[in-house]
Amino acid sequence: MKQLGLSVREDAVGNIFGRWVGSEAELGAVATGSHVDAIPFSGKYDGVVGVLGALEAISVLQRKTLLAWPACVIQVWFPAKKILGVCRFSYVHSLKMCSRLMAGSKELVQSLKRTVDNHNVSFVDAADSAGYKIHPDDLHNVFLNQDAYFAFIELHIEQGPILEKEGIPIGIVTAIAAPASIKVEFEGNGGHAGAVLMPARNDVGLAAAELALAVEKHVLESGSIDTVGTVDVRDVDEKRRNDVIEKVHKSAIDISKIRGVELSEFKIINQDPPALSDKSVINAMEFAAKQLSLEYKLMISRAYHDSLFMARISPMGMIFIPCYKGYSHKPEEYASPEDMANGVQMLALTMAKLSLE
Amino acid sequence: MKQLGLSVREDAVGNIFGRWVGSEAELGAVATGSHVDAIPFSGKYDGVVGVLGALEAISVLQRKTLLAWPACVIQVWFPAKKILGVCRFSYVHSLKMCSRLMAGSKELVQSLKRTVDNHNVSFVDAADSAGYKIHPDDLHNVFLNQDAYFAFIELHIEQGPILEKEGIPIGIVTAIAAPASIKVEFEGNGGHAGAVLMPARNDVGLAAAELALAVEKHVLESGSIDTVGTVDVRDVDEKRRNDVIEKVHKSAIDISKIRGVELSEFKIINQDPPALSDKSVINAMEFAAKQLSLEYKLMISRAYHDSLFMARISPMGMIFIPCYKGYSHKPEEYASPEDMANGVQMLALTMAKLSLE
Repeated sequence: MKQLGLSVREDAVGNIFGRWVGSEAELGAVATGSHVDAIPFSGKYDGVVGVLGALEAISVLQRKTLLAWPACVIQVWFPAKKILGVCRFSYVHSLKMCSRLMAGSKELVQSLKRTVDNHNVSFVDAADSAGYKIHPDDLHNVFLNQDAYFAFIELHIEQGPILEKEGIPIGIVTAIAAPASIKVEFEGNGGHAGAVLMPARNDVGLAAAELALAVEKHVLESGSIDTVGTVDVRDVDEKRRNDVIEKVHKSAIDISKIRGVELSEFKIINQDPPALSDKSVINAMEFAAKQLSLEYKLMISRAYHDSLFMARISPMGMIFIPCYKGYSHKPEEYASPEDMANGVQMLALTMAKLSLE
Repeated sequence: MKQLGLSVREDAVGNIFGRWVGSEAELGAVATGSHVDAIPFSGKYDGVVGVLGALEAISVLQRKTLLAWPACVIQVWFPAKKILGVCRFSYVHSLKMCSRLMAGSKELVQSLKRTVDNHNVSFVDAADSAGYKIHPDDLHNVFLNQDAYFAFIELHIEQGPILEKEGIPIGIVTAIAAPASIKVEFEGNGGHAGAVLMPARNDVGLAAAELALAVEKHVLESGSIDTVGTVDVRDVDEKRRNDVIEKVHKSAIDISKIRGVELSEFKIINQDPPALSDKSVINAMEFAAKQLSLEYKLMISRAYHDSLFMARISPMGMIFIPCYKGYSHKPEEYASPEDMANGVQMLALTMAKLSLE
């Protein structure tokens, strides 16, 4: 980032901000960024395309001297990988800790004060060991102001098969679905696989199997292609998603009664509302695609993203590029250099367009 | 065993035999024994009661000088725990490696030559590292002759709830059910939990959930209380058990078709026939119970035992004692000192009775 002449700032949890101050420093910045952490045994494009792509987009903009850019920020966050270890704290990637904090989540601050990893090490102690002297009260300093950004755009692989299948190089995201995640615990009695007669069994494995199938059933019954579910339930329609969660809860209760197992926990881990892209950002993305003669598709994101949280404090939009067979969160994840180049050009031109508004 | 004046022999895989030669050394021996290995995170009575109980029974017999015992053998096997690590090779406990080998299983000899643990270490190499110089061709030496024993009796906790529930101190086993175990592998495509639309998913987790529930369904449909199933299917009726396995196979094929996942493996791991206790051993056990004024119940064993394999080379019988709530294969496993003492007296008197026949 220093090669690009950006001024660099790191916040209390290791988020890194590079700011390129344009001709009108007092204007709200146009921001971009993504994450570099992912789930274990994952791929190398999820998030990373939007981080390296952001740096490349800034470089593109700096080489175009036709315009004096009024204002521009690039921001990048690393902490899961760099400080705390991938997935050591489940919310780092799964719950989008960094962007959720930036967006001012007081609940997350509270939970970070309490939460420990598998070895009973707290988040604050883990950060401390990694050289980050976080005082729990400093976590509020990660919050960004509501007017910090004029707009936020994220470049990302689609993580689904649609663009590749339809042969379209660019997806312009109009809405981001959000997952509702639940933690369910059944308790029964273990016993000998042969000696306990069938009527005397209260097998939590089978209770869990039934519940997994019930999740699928309730998701399919929603009647919408936009409802998906497995370890969590996602939808762009918040009410429809939460209805599914309620049905899953009812199923869990029924299963526990029928099988004589105890439903010892049914806890909603997170239930974030979906987010809509801002019309101004969508317009800028469409402008950019047309300028670049790139075919594009207006689409929703079924995966959720840091942009979901950035939308709480800024007008937001996302640019998708195709990825091989829609694979993500596994090593086969892949995006071609051509598609990444298209995405970077889209990002650069969208930022330019927004900077000039 | 040396304190008891037994002559001790150890075979190529670490089975330990203590022989007490009576007044008529040429007679076939009355044998007893059990195992000390078990599954991980298990209890301390499964098997061990029959090993320490056997030593105690010999001690009881030696203290009773009224009779000159014609012949008596105690045998004990340790290898899973002592040489190879509990469950390092799945067949050590789950497939009753030691007794299966003693009973002359040529299939097991072949499979031991090939099989490796999770770290790709072969059984022979693992035994070698533990100080047992096993040449694969020596495994045949573990086989016992068909006429080695006049009878074999095993004392064991019931591993089920019946004796405790009915307040009966002794179970006399008339038949041992045997499990049929299958290995099933589905293959599908991983993908993003949010981004892959429901119709495009081929989720092997849900295929496995459906199959687990299908096992339960087919077991219940057998209509017999003696049919049980979970990770394996067990029954005293071999045909009824194998019918369930066939139905499970058909379900696996159906599930793979409907869900678009590949059924890449459906392999029968073992499918041993059940075994009947020998009438002569049952008679001796009933005689002993009456002599000791212990109420007893004729029952079948739904758990399977080393005795299942000993029955291939010897008349066989088993003595059950109650255990707490029928718990087994978990730390809560427990048998009371009184029940164990009854079991040891039963074992001693049954051996005495058989020795005098």
